[in-house]
Amino acid sequence: MNKKIGKQSFKLPSKPRIVSSASFVGSKEGEGPLGKLFDVIYKDDTIGLDSFEQAESRMLQSAVRLALEKIGREPDDMDLFLGGDLLSQIISAGFAARELRSPFMGMYGACSTMAEGLLNAAMLIDGGFAELAVCGASSHFSSSEREFRYPLEMGTQSSPTAQRTVTGAAAVAVSASNAKIRDAYYESIILTGGTIGRVQDYGITDASNMGAAMAPAAASTICAHMEDMGVGPEHFTRIVTGDLGSFGTQMLYELCYMKGYDVSRNHSDCGMMIFSKDQNVMCGGSGCGCCASVLSAKLLPDIESGVLERILFVATGALLSPLSSLQGETIPSIAHAAVIERRSV
Amino acid sequence: MNKKIGKQSFKLPSKPRIVSSASFVGSKEGEGPLGKLFDVIYKDDTIGLDSFEQAESRMLQSAVRLALEKIGREPDDMDLFLGGDLLSQIISAGFAARELRSPFMGMYGACSTMAEGLLNAAMLIDGGFAELAVCGASSHFSSSEREFRYPLEMGTQSSPTAQRTVTGAAAVAVSASNAKIRDAYYESIILTGGTIGRVQDYGITDASNMGAAMAPAAASTICAHMEDMGVGPEHFTRIVTGDLGSFGTQMLYELCYMKGYDVSRNHSDCGMMIFSKDQNVMCGGSGCGCCASVLSAKLLPDIESGVLERILFVATGALLSPLSSLQGETIPSIAHAAVIERRSV
Repeated sequence: MNKKIGKQSFKLPSKPRIVSSASFVGSKEGEGPLGKLFDVIYKDDTIGLDSFEQAESRMLQSAVRLALEKIGREPDDMDLFLGGDLLSQIISAGFAARELRSPFMGMYGACSTMAEGLLNAAMLIDGGFAELAVCGASSHFSSSEREFRYPLEMGTQSSPTAQRTVTGAAAVAVSASNAKIRDAYYESIILTGGTIGRVQDYGITDASNMGAAMAPAAASTICAHMEDMGVGPEHFTRIVTGDLGSFGTQMLYELCYMKGYDVSRNHSDCGMMIFSKDQNVMCGGSGCGCCASVLSAKLLPDIESGVLERILFVATGALLSPLSSLQGETIPSIAHAAVIERRSV
Repeated sequence: MNKKIGKQSFKLPSKPRIVSSASFVGSKEGEGPLGKLFDVIYKDDTIGLDSFEQAESRMLQSAVRLALEKIGREPDDMDLFLGGDLLSQIISAGFAARELRSPFMGMYGACSTMAEGLLNAAMLIDGGFAELAVCGASSHFSSSEREFRYPLEMGTQSSPTAQRTVTGAAAVAVSASNAKIRDAYYESIILTGGTIGRVQDYGITDASNMGAAMAPAAASTICAHMEDMGVGPEHFTRIVTGDLGSFGTQMLYELCYMKGYDVSRNHSDCGMMIFSKDQNVMCGGSGCGCCASVLSAKLLPDIESGVLERILFVATGALLSPLSSLQGETIPSIAHAAVIERRSV
């Protein structure tokens, strides 16, 4: 059966379920507006380990374990772990996978990783290749500053368009609709389709202006989804982007409007939800862990409880490296979109 | 329908086809035993561009274009590009995807990337989510030395267990068995199953001894495949690993033998096939581009012509980063295996 719709989108006839999730964040995220919703908040940036990178990997590993624990399962019970992060050679995910010992596929979509993993997991489950898969993504403010920007010790000032990388890791467990999950943490959440992104590049070179670099990717994927599926923005209770921040969000509205879609009425951005304005984070949060932890802590529970009926979860990633920036390259970006909705009973 | 077999393996009932492939390599690879078989051999390490990294990305992009050209298609005709490489934030694949403009999923499995992409593409096609997908992987001697080891200008001496990163990029086009490919470059090659790897770590810390770090992953995946599928090594004309090199190969034989499988009789390693001993490459070739280019230039044509009936293509990746090594971490590894065989007419 052909499940492809249009050029980039697909439906999921078997409607795989999201049965559990877990989120671990740092102290600043814990002090934000969603603070009470995260499963675990760490006070210490290294969570007692030797490095930020070890801490990030441990958080990701712990999120996967907790998501499984919530449904009475262990790492050995999952068919597949799809994980990724921002660090070189995705060491957070790789080292987490070593400890989890499950079959592992490493993903790289920068901050779009959670959506990339979700789409992949849902398609593999719909195709009959797995019954229970867990998607994980993480980021860490301090490991990202080391990887992409300046040593923290330099005390470099942020530019007004900068965003703060979220210290956070989240895991989302996806199961076949007919899988026997006795104690599902979520009873009513299903994945019904998605859109795989194309890389966009509007020539932005400023690594402190990721929102502007990623907005074209979000607009491209959202509009492709609308066109492929023949729906409008009003089809969704909310369209939720990953980490465009306040500046990128404005750009998204304009780009979509130029293509005939007004997404401003029911759009939210995880980067703007996770921190409040008085937390001094410039344009908002960013990083793989940003939309992953907001999805786990806020969006999925809201779908489960009926506050949200159907969302388009659009995670955006900037595909740059420190080296490509030094070599004068612009910042290409990608966005993947997953349709997550409440199952009508 | 459940297509999972055992804990890590799966079958592909629809038998997706490999319809085309292309390989681009550097001059040293061109001077090796397989030299005549590659599509394009570059004499210049930067292929006339400004950096090794740009050269690597361009090679990957060119390989995808050529693989499609061989079947009369263009980048816009593919449903999905699954690509990855060794560089931080997989910039070779990301920048190639920007130029190709197709839906893109970034993969990270270090040198196992081609097998990870092939398995993923085959499952998505079998599941009905794509008709034509292209898997790509690349590596470059000079960009890898910069990324993982020492600046070339230092003239550091290689250790006896070291391997030489292959300068090479390859793309493999996978299509649904019922897709209309009028002028398929390969008529008789199918993917029938695979095994997704688990991360293994035997505590190796020497980044100049990747073969030893990766051999346990290869052994784990090969033995898991045999157990899941209920077959022995003799089921395959050849079992072909990615880049264990001569030292890692010996270790693979011993590890498999301890689990009751003698793989020494029909095993080949792409890292040992691509260079001859008199090319001064120590233990052989390595890198994402190693097994990818050997698959494209040698293995697939040999299956098409009937020289090989059925192979287990086992690509191995070392999941380290320069930072994780500096922080004293060991080198975890992973291997993914794809069953590629000749279709009986």
